[in-house]
Amino acid sequence: MQLTDAQRFDWLRLIRTERVGPRTFRGLINRFGSAAAALDALPDLTKRTGKPIVPATKAQIERELAAAARLGVRYLAMGEAEYPKSLHATDTAPPLIALRGAAGAILKPSVAIVGSRNASTAGLAFTERLAMGLGEAGLVVVSGLARGIDARAHRAALKGGTVAVIAGGHDKIYPDSHKGLVDEILEAGGAIVAEMPMGWVPRGRDFPRRNRIISGLSLGTVVVEAARRSGSLITARFALEQGREVFAVPGSPLDPRAEGTNDLIRQGATLVAEVEHVLTVIEPLISGGEGKAGGVADRPEPEDADYWDEIDLDGTGPRPAVAVLHEAPAPFHTAPSDDDEAGERLLAALSPAPVGTDALARATGLPVRVVHSLLLELELDGRIERHGSGTVSLLSRA
Amino acid sequence: MQLTDAQRFDWLRLIRTERVGPRTFRGLINRFGSAAAALDALPDLTKRTGKPIVPATKAQIERELAAAARLGVRYLAMGEAEYPKSLHATDTAPPLIALRGAAGAILKPSVAIVGSRNASTAGLAFTERLAMGLGEAGLVVVSGLARGIDARAHRAALKGGTVAVIAGGHDKIYPDSHKGLVDEILEAGGAIVAEMPMGWVPRGRDFPRRNRIISGLSLGTVVVEAARRSGSLITARFALEQGREVFAVPGSPLDPRAEGTNDLIRQGATLVAEVEHVLTVIEPLISGGEGKAGGVADRPEPEDADYWDEIDLDGTGPRPAVAVLHEAPAPFHTAPSDDDEAGERLLAALSPAPVGTDALARATGLPVRVVHSLLLELELDGRIERHGSGTVSLLSRA
Repeated sequence: MQLTDAQRFDWLRLIRTERVGPRTFRGLINRFGSAAAALDALPDLTKRTGKPIVPATKAQIERELAAAARLGVRYLAMGEAEYPKSLHATDTAPPLIALRGAAGAILKPSVAIVGSRNASTAGLAFTERLAMGLGEAGLVVVSGLARGIDARAHRAALKGGTVAVIAGGHDKIYPDSHKGLVDEILEAGGAIVAEMPMGWVPRGRDFPRRNRIISGLSLGTVVVEAARRSGSLITARFALEQGREVFAVPGSPLDPRAEGTNDLIRQGATLVAEVEHVLTVIEPLISGGEGKAGGVADRPEPEDADYWDEIDLDGTGPRPAVAVLHEAPAPFHTAPSDDDEAGERLLAALSPAPVGTDALARATGLPVRVVHSLLLELELDGRIERHGSGTVSLLSRA
Repeated sequence: MQLTDAQRFDWLRLIRTERVGPRTFRGLINRFGSAAAALDALPDLTKRTGKPIVPATKAQIERELAAAARLGVRYLAMGEAEYPKSLHATDTAPPLIALRGAAGAILKPSVAIVGSRNASTAGLAFTERLAMGLGEAGLVVVSGLARGIDARAHRAALKGGTVAVIAGGHDKIYPDSHKGLVDEILEAGGAIVAEMPMGWVPRGRDFPRRNRIISGLSLGTVVVEAARRSGSLITARFALEQGREVFAVPGSPLDPRAEGTNDLIRQGATLVAEVEHVLTVIEPLISGGEGKAGGVADRPEPEDADYWDEIDLDGTGPRPAVAVLHEAPAPFHTAPSDDDEAGERLLAALSPAPVGTDALARATGLPVRVVHSLLLELELDGRIERHGSGTVSLLSRA
């Protein structure tokens, strides 16, 4: 599949529309057949929600495309040849990714390396050894361009190839001091990937969402150092949910930066003390004859979902609807619209009797904006029915 | 069962006899019904070996008992009420142990803590936390009185109770500087256990043999810090072979003192980052109603022997007949007579055609003395037949 320029424009316009996340995007395309048709239908579709959706304007998209062109950013659509199959295989893959640099870098087999921003000297040294070793084995290293472990992983992997997934727009690199690293990555033939629009300054909640792309691009994720309740553990959780391998580097129980990784190992992650420990697991997953240079194999489904369901990555009992994130530069405000648990909570609050959006927000503790997004997804799934005055009811699944 | 003084004297005389190890001891008792009868029979039994066994003299045993009495050392025989059932359950349990201090300490549920002599500050601090936590949970801490981790474990467990298993005789404490620690352990109500005779200066090979008693007394063994090929890993291997729990404390891959423990975790040992990680596994193994203060439960057989068979504790491929030991104060010379692998090597060298002892020593690479010991065990097992001129042949097992 290859989109025309007009189709790509409509895709971008649809995903840039308020309350349209990756899942809603898929639902709309499935229901209306194209982004253009979905954009036409959206205002009517949502007029009874009390807060009809207004599609992103053409002018907004034209401005984004112009800004993207200035940086040489291209948009790859899910299903196109250059859109990584590994990412496509995930539940909440972005319909479009904005790519700066070489598409080759995101198409080669890769492993993510993530970890603390305030890493130890030993953690940084081990990251370097690991990233170089993975590069020598023909694997691209994916990370998040953060300070500490991320930056060291990118730098050590420049030769072997590295991909940075950023939380904001391509023209809003965070942290600012890593603009030079972006240039180095691009000069070395690597790539920068963004989901958010040009001009988007990353907020706290964008970082954990971004992490699903780091893990989703990769055959496995290695967590080098991570405190409990850190963003790196969110990446590990995404890797798990995506059926990817999870690796963790052990550390002294007296080092708080090893608490998260030691926990992961106790929960079943593969202990990594040398690069071979990663390669032994990853190399058999790479198809394509030549092994190291081959394409990405079909992902195995998580075989032991029951086991992993028990995992409590942050050690605080049931996962809160809103993940706590310490590595983010700003407070983490609200759940992304794709949050499964928020969706389940909302479903539980719904019944065949019509109820208003405000009442649902109070009953679930979710922000009204999130309730609106989730209701749209449920409507596209045929799970709910709209009534007058913005009320909704649960449809029987019989 | 309770031995009479005369029986205990004969047991001690038999086990102090050259070439009689724990397995030969059991074989002789089974064949002759008592230690006294075995002592009578030994010279004749071995006269065709070319090197007949001369039992330890009564005077030697009297000297040992007198020296033991001066230090308040008592001998406990396997099967007696004060001989720990957990140790009795092991394949090569010493027929007699020499005990200094409180028998109560060796009868309570216990966990071994072992590790490097040149431990890190963090390793020592964690050892202290662990030993105190186990003590607070009602568990005795067993270790080997070595410098580093062992000594810290004993000291931190003084209040909760601790047992030191030494490699030499009770009057030959090694290292010399730990004589004060021995006194502290005894004053605190703990115990010192020795297998070797009074007056025995520990040699290199005595340390790994001693380690089987450390693990054998304990429900599980925690390895805190251990380089590859270290004595602590030998203790872990014994624990495994004895069907006991193995725990390891992780560390940075860049710290050589964590190589052994990280390897153990990769091989299936339970990662320990806090005392609860030990208690969660150990407490269910303790029977006796009150839980923590109860007796020692029946040991489970190792369920996954095939899995553990794959373990290569020292990372050098097949286990050498003579284990390499870096923590020992002297070079490790020869295999103990109980070494399974040496026995298998000897069996492989035997055939229905009679062959001489010297030829067997050359064929197996084992010292003649070890060949003699192993042949005695095989003879007691009815596996071989003696011929003239000290030759032996393999008996058909049909």
